[in-house]
Amino acid sequence: MEKITLADIKWIKSLHEKKNRSAENCFLIEGRKLLDEAIMTPNIRITMVVLCSAYDQELHLEEDTQVLFASEKEMQRITCLKNHANVLAVVEIPEVKNLKMSRAICLDKLQDPGNMGTIMRIADWFGINNIVASNDTVDVFNPKTIQASMGSIFRVQVHYVDLTEFLKKSTLPIYAATMDGEPYHHFNFENNGLLLIGNEGNGISPEISEIITHSVGIPRIGKAESLNAAVACGILCAHWSIK
Amino acid sequence: MEKITLADIKWIKSLHEKKNRSAENCFLIEGRKLLDEAIMTPNIRITMVVLCSAYDQELHLEEDTQVLFASEKEMQRITCLKNHANVLAVVEIPEVKNLKMSRAICLDKLQDPGNMGTIMRIADWFGINNIVASNDTVDVFNPKTIQASMGSIFRVQVHYVDLTEFLKKSTLPIYAATMDGEPYHHFNFENNGLLLIGNEGNGISPEISEIITHSVGIPRIGKAESLNAAVACGILCAHWSIK
Repeated sequence: MEKITLADIKWIKSLHEKKNRSAENCFLIEGRKLLDEAIMTPNIRITMVVLCSAYDQELHLEEDTQVLFASEKEMQRITCLKNHANVLAVVEIPEVKNLKMSRAICLDKLQDPGNMGTIMRIADWFGINNIVASNDTVDVFNPKTIQASMGSIFRVQVHYVDLTEFLKKSTLPIYAATMDGEPYHHFNFENNGLLLIGNEGNGISPEISEIITHSVGIPRIGKAESLNAAVACGILCAHWSIK
Repeated sequence: MEKITLADIKWIKSLHEKKNRSAENCFLIEGRKLLDEAIMTPNIRITMVVLCSAYDQELHLEEDTQVLFASEKEMQRITCLKNHANVLAVVEIPEVKNLKMSRAICLDKLQDPGNMGTIMRIADWFGINNIVASNDTVDVFNPKTIQASMGSIFRVQVHYVDLTEFLKKSTLPIYAATMDGEPYHHFNFENNGLLLIGNEGNGISPEISEIITHSVGIPRIGKAESLNAAVACGILCAHWSIK
């Protein structure tokens, strides 16, 4: 096992930023649970694993994975977390397969990385394998997204597209979560369709509002101004899945 | 308007920690939206407001609220956020009124402050005015909880109690969210009852599992190991509210 070098540290830290992840075509995962999920997932290539002194559990890695050893201090320099997780890995960004799908969650300018990760986990729970995101939606390989996805990042594909164009071309019903939509429990969602979730502060974009086929709401009884976007997505996916 | 002093800065920073919030009986809020909600809520006492140079909107404060002026640099020292919000306020912890309630969300060792805030927002949306939390649940006045609650902190009461004792004494049905519970949509939740959400990693405590009256699950179709605790709470509250 080699010791981590200053150049390695610098390179790994550069992957905290989206532009470098895109240029290098890889992203970071941290913690044993995520690493195990990556190892178990076919077609996921782990190029580098960094372990620190405190780490002594056995790993089942491919032979071409570079394994580096880091001190506590070095680990704390490369982590995206407040406290490092004893193991960090560099994973190649998987190829996104074709866009033909019968059901998906669509994200219109979603900005919060935690919401993005939580929505991936919801999709994964309810067996929805595709998320279609507008090009200006938060990056799926943001470290906070990856942590919040709890491993669903390896099972749910995210397609970044011109969302307006994508929706215009689609023949599927588009169920958009809106503040004043028809109560969701009055709807019989079709099995095949698209569930559209808007931006946390502004909801659905005006140009997309024009092309949705159904506006779906979650009736409010109390006084909160809105629900969290991921929670709204969860409520609608749960309803969709029992139909 | 006075300038902020070093002593003020030190004191405000001390309120980032729970033990000091308890000792001083106050907590911090940041941003105009939260401050407006605090101003509009009867019986919420704002003791101090700190503004920075960039801030020029009018505020409608009580006469006894101390207003301090801080530089960008001073603001960045006292904020709990990555980037300060131009306005920060110190608010007295409101008195929690009696524990008699017909419906509530109960939290068993919930640890994530974001989840706590999101659950307050869910409660507020669905008109559930009380949350009963085990004594070892995350602090409701944690800055991350307050941000995630989006103002619901001023409308939903959180009671910290010995949760096992509380549930033992209650005569209400206890609907516990569990991984293997009966599918939620087969249930007719009674209007009066308690919805119990467990710890993010470990679920419901063993001693509490023995006293729940109904174990409620959200059927999984895909492969995620679990749903986020706040999302599960949202799905069950939505179902509860349409019954």
